[in-house]
Amino acid sequence: MSDLGTRELLVELLVDFHRRGWVSGTGGGICGPAGDGRLYLAPTGVHKERVRPEDLFTVAVADGTVVEAPPDPDLRPSECNAIFCLAARERGARSVVHSHALSAVLAADLAGDGDQLALRDLEMLKGIRGLTNRDVHLVPVIRNTPREAELVEQLTAVLADARFAGSFAVLVADHGAYIWGDDVWEAKRHTEVYHFLFEAALARHRA
Amino acid sequence: MSDLGTRELLVELLVDFHRRGWVSGTGGGICGPAGDGRLYLAPTGVHKERVRPEDLFTVAVADGTVVEAPPDPDLRPSECNAIFCLAARERGARSVVHSHALSAVLAADLAGDGDQLALRDLEMLKGIRGLTNRDVHLVPVIRNTPREAELVEQLTAVLADARFAGSFAVLVADHGAYIWGDDVWEAKRHTEVYHFLFEAALARHRA
Amino acid sequence: MSDLGTRELLVELLVDFHRRGWVSGTGGGICGPAGDGRLYLAPTGVHKERVRPEDLFTVAVADGTVVEAPPDPDLRPSECNAIFCLAARERGARSVVHSHALSAVLAADLAGDGDQLALRDLEMLKGIRGLTNRDVHLVPVIRNTPREAELVEQLTAVLADARFAGSFAVLVADHGAYIWGDDVWEAKRHTEVYHFLFEAALARHRA
Amino acid sequence: MSDLGTRELLVELLVDFHRRGWVSGTGGGICGPAGDGRLYLAPTGVHKERVRPEDLFTVAVADGTVVEAPPDPDLRPSECNAIFCLAARERGARSVVHSHALSAVLAADLAGDGDQLALRDLEMLKGIRGLTNRDVHLVPVIRNTPREAELVEQLTAVLADARFAGSFAVLVADHGAYIWGDDVWEAKRHTEVYHFLFEAALARHRA
Repeated sequence: MSDLGTRELLVELLVDFHRRGWVSGTGGGICGPAGDGRLYLAPTGVHKERVRPEDLFTVAVADGTVVEAPPDPDLRPSECNAIFCLAARERGARSVVHSHALSAVLAADLAGDGDQLALRDLEMLKGIRGLTNRDVHLVPVIRNTPREAELVEQLTAVLADARFAGSFAVLVADHGAYIWGDDVWEAKRHTEVYHFLFEAALARHRA
Repeated sequence: MSDLGTRELLVELLVDFHRRGWVSGTGGGICGPAGDGRLYLAPTGVHKERVRPEDLFTVAVADGTVVEAPPDPDLRPSECNAIFCLAARERGARSVVHSHALSAVLAADLAGDGDQLALRDLEMLKGIRGLTNRDVHLVPVIRNTPREAELVEQLTAVLADARFAGSFAVLVADHGAYIWGDDVWEAKRHTEVYHFLFEAALARHRA
Repeated sequence: MSDLGTRELLVELLVDFHRRGWVSGTGGGICGPAGDGRLYLAPTGVHKERVRPEDLFTVAVADGTVVEAPPDPDLRPSECNAIFCLAARERGARSVVHSHALSAVLAADLAGDGDQLALRDLEMLKGIRGLTNRDVHLVPVIRNTPREAELVEQLTAVLADARFAGSFAVLVADHGAYIWGDDVWEAKRHTEVYHFLFEAALARHRA
Repeated sequence: MSDLGTRELLVELLVDFHRRGWVSGTGGGICGPAGDGRLYLAPTGVHKERVRPEDLFTVAVADGTVVEAPPDPDLRPSECNAIFCLAARERGARSVVHSHALSAVLAADLAGDGDQLALRDLEMLKGIRGLTNRDVHLVPVIRNTPREAELVEQLTAVLADARFAGSFAVLVADHGAYIWGDDVWEAKRHTEVYHFLFEAALARHRA
């Protein structure tokens, strides 16, 4: 897929995610592969469904440095930058979605004081790379911090935790989720699957 | 943003809000900045998703006087006029959304006989100007009255109440919410954020 | 509004109502004014969001006789015909919506063995012609019958019942609702308002 | 309907079903009549709302053999292939929808350790061929298996079970549903109706 194709796909997904309530009120974000170890990154503080392809930043995975800024001087790179780059370095993620979905917040609530959510007994688990529908899949739940960049320390810890070696998502209590994949299509698939799993866990918990 | 741009954006938002169920059945409304201390105001009693840019009234913030009426002689200015102008004068609001969302009605129910709703423990609080995700944010809840213009007295009181100095929204029991911002984009962001917060408060209350 | 305009508006509303889940699975229907005491009537047994303006029947309000059939010989007039014409004769309705919304079914459940649902304490009551937000609005609930035409007897009774003189809707248990207005726009407004009221009654009952 | 028409309709329905959450995360599928005892079959492992008419496989109903593959060499036929062909042979289904809707998963949960779900007291039952609104309609519920092809044995058994002679759907616990009809339009109608019935059963169970 060409660079233009990736930029266009990222903004198209933001429109779709906004319609679903996953990136409301300027919240949430997305990044995708720009080649050469770089990522296209959505700007912060803007209505995500209004982002245009040329509004994306290009950042270096190694340290999040902005390599190329969009023409609009008012735009700033997403606060997710440090987290997206961490997922890229530690898990080889080339696309990461940051969701502010209510279902993610409520699914994190299910963990209570614990640090994980167990997802099981669902065919949709197969939609996550490497899983069968017989697996019990553990997703880490970390605490929210005043600034998103401060989540890095906790995120580093759970990405190194053997329990979560198979997870492509991290829930942030009171906040939402980070969900990734090898490319934008896998990130999209994982995003849809994890939101389904969160909603299913909530519905079964209530029943 | 040009005047035409503001008019077009306001009617576009009405379409979007109607799709979400926030301005059903001709209910709800919106206003935005017309320059020179004036506001563009949607008409009353019409299907809000059908309003055209030329259907908007121009009113003076000082007293709600209609400065310019739309070509269609059947249109009347929104009953929200007095309230919108009050928010503009007291809080500097340049754009106000009046929502008839069910989530706003049910969130107001959570206040019971009290006069406030506390919103807390959510990253989305950051979407409201001036707040951090550690704040406990108080939104005033006022009683409904037979006519919208009669809400003015209560609204004047809560806008002067120190507890609600940081609020950009007022819930009206059995009715909905008024939500504002410095411009249309901030009003849109606040509208999406407050609806998310109302839904989150309801879901956690049920859990 | 021209005849073509009415036909086009009716099929546009069917698309919108289908998106909301009010006329799923070929269920539900709509009619609107054709002039000269006649109604445009959607066909039965077809996917309602696929109906074209030329697919509508023209029927006489007096007895439901088909005055003009659509070009497609496979189409048959809606089973709602007798009920729509009854509402037109008894209440002067010029447009009637038949909804199969789940919220209507569940709202009728709230009546239990009774024959009415009370709607109250909601600003949205104002969206129904003649009501204030202080009214307690009674909607009749009738029993379902094997065929829609057989609902006529019960419907005749509730339309003559003084309790329901102000109602523009009848709930049919296990089935849905008939909702009407003086013209298509009022029928649309009433349809949106009653569905909101049904959803609000359900949410408050659960709380 | 021409072959091209069928292909286009199938991909249009996938877009609509994706919007409703019935085929999220590359899950779910669809097939339709290709003539000569063959079926058009959606590919597996792809985002279902992105499938193009030329991406469909043509398979023989007799044994699921691929008669014609799409130009894109990366596409593989849906894992539903064996099940779709079984429904075609045993029930004369010419179009089958495989839904991953959460409502189907939760409706199957209502069966507990049993092997059936009873649907009753709903007008929408009429939307299923052969039923009246007085019928108690039994839908079989089978257990999930590691691979979809392995569902064949259970499916063969329930299709031969006299209790389910009138059913056009099979629920798969923890997974979703297969729903079929004589042609694509009936499959679409049955799909919308069964999802409504699942949602109604869940809502009434909670009440």
